[in-house]
Amino acid sequence: MTYCVGLQLDRGLVFLSDTRTNAGVDNISTYRKQFTWEVPGERALVLMTAGNLATTQAVVSLLDERNLAPSERDPSLLTVPSMFQAARLVGKTLQDVIADSSQEGPASATKTFGATMILGGQIKGSSPRLYLIYPEGNFVEAQRDTPFFQIGETKYGRPILVRAFETSMDYATAVKLLMVSFDSTIRANLSVGTPLDLQVLEADTLRLGTSRRIQETDSDWRAISDGWSNALRQAFHSLPDVTL
Amino acid sequence: MTYCVGLQLDRGLVFLSDTRTNAGVDNISTYRKQFTWEVPGERALVLMTAGNLATTQAVVSLLDERNLAPSERDPSLLTVPSMFQAARLVGKTLQDVIADSSQEGPASATKTFGATMILGGQIKGSSPRLYLIYPEGNFVEAQRDTPFFQIGETKYGRPILVRAFETSMDYATAVKLLMVSFDSTIRANLSVGTPLDLQVLEADTLRLGTSRRIQETDSDWRAISDGWSNALRQAFHSLPDVTL
Repeated sequence: MTYCVGLQLDRGLVFLSDTRTNAGVDNISTYRKQFTWEVPGERALVLMTAGNLATTQAVVSLLDERNLAPSERDPSLLTVPSMFQAARLVGKTLQDVIADSSQEGPASATKTFGATMILGGQIKGSSPRLYLIYPEGNFVEAQRDTPFFQIGETKYGRPILVRAFETSMDYATAVKLLMVSFDSTIRANLSVGTPLDLQVLEADTLRLGTSRRIQETDSDWRAISDGWSNALRQAFHSLPDVTL
Repeated sequence: MTYCVGLQLDRGLVFLSDTRTNAGVDNISTYRKQFTWEVPGERALVLMTAGNLATTQAVVSLLDERNLAPSERDPSLLTVPSMFQAARLVGKTLQDVIADSSQEGPASATKTFGATMILGGQIKGSSPRLYLIYPEGNFVEAQRDTPFFQIGETKYGRPILVRAFETSMDYATAVKLLMVSFDSTIRANLSVGTPLDLQVLEADTLRLGTSRRIQETDSDWRAISDGWSNALRQAFHSLPDVTL
């Protein structure tokens, strides 16, 4: 499994992804699930992936190949004119890879070889955009009412996002919130694990911002993880008593 | 879907279950998923159910029928000599109902007609016991290291249980904890909903204790639900800052 979250803030986008992959509980590996592309001053894109690892690796490789010889292989992520077209390109590539993986019909292929992706970024001339791309190749865009997307093992970490996320947050607070959401997930589910990959994309800079690999021993991560247990217990005990 | 939790405290057992059932999002009903049996001074049992509603209703009806004419239909929940035998009886009944529902093999039947149950109680001569019963009819018992069971939509409400539950809690604190866990689930998932059914079973009383139906408007529930949002936000903001 996997856990990735993309947040759409007023001031830009923040991405956090885990790195654990597993085929059964006795075959666990560490793979990066976050990929970036950049033409400084013109565009910056971030892609996070969940699902069949063979599928997601093939999608990223195909997207990279298109970038290497863009004149021969239009469109590519480095040349598409809008984030909407970037999402279409990723969706189409994902759909093709899944279809190629199976001799059976698309429904069966999606089940076995499926993957889901979060794509965010900004291309000059438009505002930052955040998309959730389904294994069928279609996608939805984050909006004011739904300003974040999760993929993978989404349930454990959702309650804190639903309650505490505000689009007006600064980057440090948003990263703190993501760390809490990831900590809740990692403590409850073996299939999600550190290290985590963080990427910040500040609006209108048109380049990749702060990027960081957060290890289990990272001092910020430890402070949040340990602090959250205590803070949560204190919050619980601060609640009014129930009369039985 | 459904959400039910059974806690094993040092001083007894506490059960909380929701009442929402759905077949699709446009066919939502309210059904009680918590059932009790009692021979005051001799035994008290509580059963909570998740899964196929036809299956769970049939299991409860069959268990009740056995109780009506126990001499003809041994064993019954009112006559079995131990909680272990009670769990075996519930498991066997569940297995039989699922097998009867399908002409196909047991694996397919379990998938379509499956149900999972939490059984807890005390029979004179032994301590209170708590079991998780699988659709295959077998079961596991709660122990010191794993002193609670969840069934149904378990993930949203798990992080707070993992962090804050202690078997030394008093009943009111345990109920408060369950309310927080249910509130997190209900806010995140439409398939779990109020009213909730609460049952307390105090060790060695050998009778059903406090029982209560908690409506959406219940003053304790409102205080916890509203208070938890604030407490959680405060807890979040009390965490140390992250440096980017």
